[in-house]
Amino acid sequence: MNIAVTETDVIMLNMNKFLDDIIWTEDDLIPVIVQDDASSGVLMFAWMNREALELTVKEQRAVFWSRSRKKLWRKGEESGYIQYIKEIRLDCDGDILIIKVEQMGGISCHTGRTSCFYKVLKNDEWISVDPVIKDPKEIYK
Amino acid sequence: MNIAVTETDVIMLNMNKFLDDIIWTEDDLIPVIVQDDASSGVLMFAWMNREALELTVKEQRAVFWSRSRKKLWRKGEESGYIQYIKEIRLDCDGDILIIKVEQMGGISCHTGRTSCFYKVLKNDEWISVDPVIKDPKEIYK
Repeated sequence: MNIAVTETDVIMLNMNKFLDDIIWTEDDLIPVIVQDDASSGVLMFAWMNREALELTVKEQRAVFWSRSRKKLWRKGEESGYIQYIKEIRLDCDGDILIIKVEQMGGISCHTGRTSCFYKVLKNDEWISVDPVIKDPKEIYK
Repeated sequence: MNIAVTETDVIMLNMNKFLDDIIWTEDDLIPVIVQDDASSGVLMFAWMNREALELTVKEQRAVFWSRSRKKLWRKGEESGYIQYIKEIRLDCDGDILIIKVEQMGGISCHTGRTSCFYKVLKNDEWISVDPVIKDPKEIYK
């Protein structure tokens, strides 16, 4: 039997390969650390499923799986604060991703801050140390 | 009724407070992103339970909960590659930590590399891009 394999088939096979290399959780997810490519600051932490990662690679923008809303979530779809992909890395165990991104508008947190990690432990208390850049009411109208 | 409260009691209460502020997973864990304080590179990703975080704060070195071995794991206890705490941050939702550390020996990964995130996605393949600094056989004798 002769099977004709097109270039698209080969691309699709490769596409599946890098997804198959990942060790997904029981819920078919992978944790994702989002890092600002310019400053190296960690912006946020989210989750992807297979489809989210496939779309992230295809569209070169961050697409996550929202565990609370149980649906795909194109980062910035409401706020405009899109994250464009600069690099994607996988860890030694194959079960955690880092995406390095260009953060549109310099805000990744729903509180209107650059990073979600704005609370620092000082004398056994969590203290907010980073400024709100834009009032969330102005972001999510 | 008159209750005498000692300074130690107050410290213990505060100690509990910052742990209580955390939203723990169903397994009473929190994901931890470990970032190099000097370079801002993300070194690894691990988990802490309440006791691990308490010990991390007390000893000012990273102590994790090993989910596979189901026990506390003082980072560097075998390898010597201890992580000294420079800062601890919590995210907006209270369910993810970043610890910024001074990485002894410049190696955090069990493969002998600086960071666990040494595989980059290139043309739909994971390519190892970072050098092995020390042969793991030399680290874990």
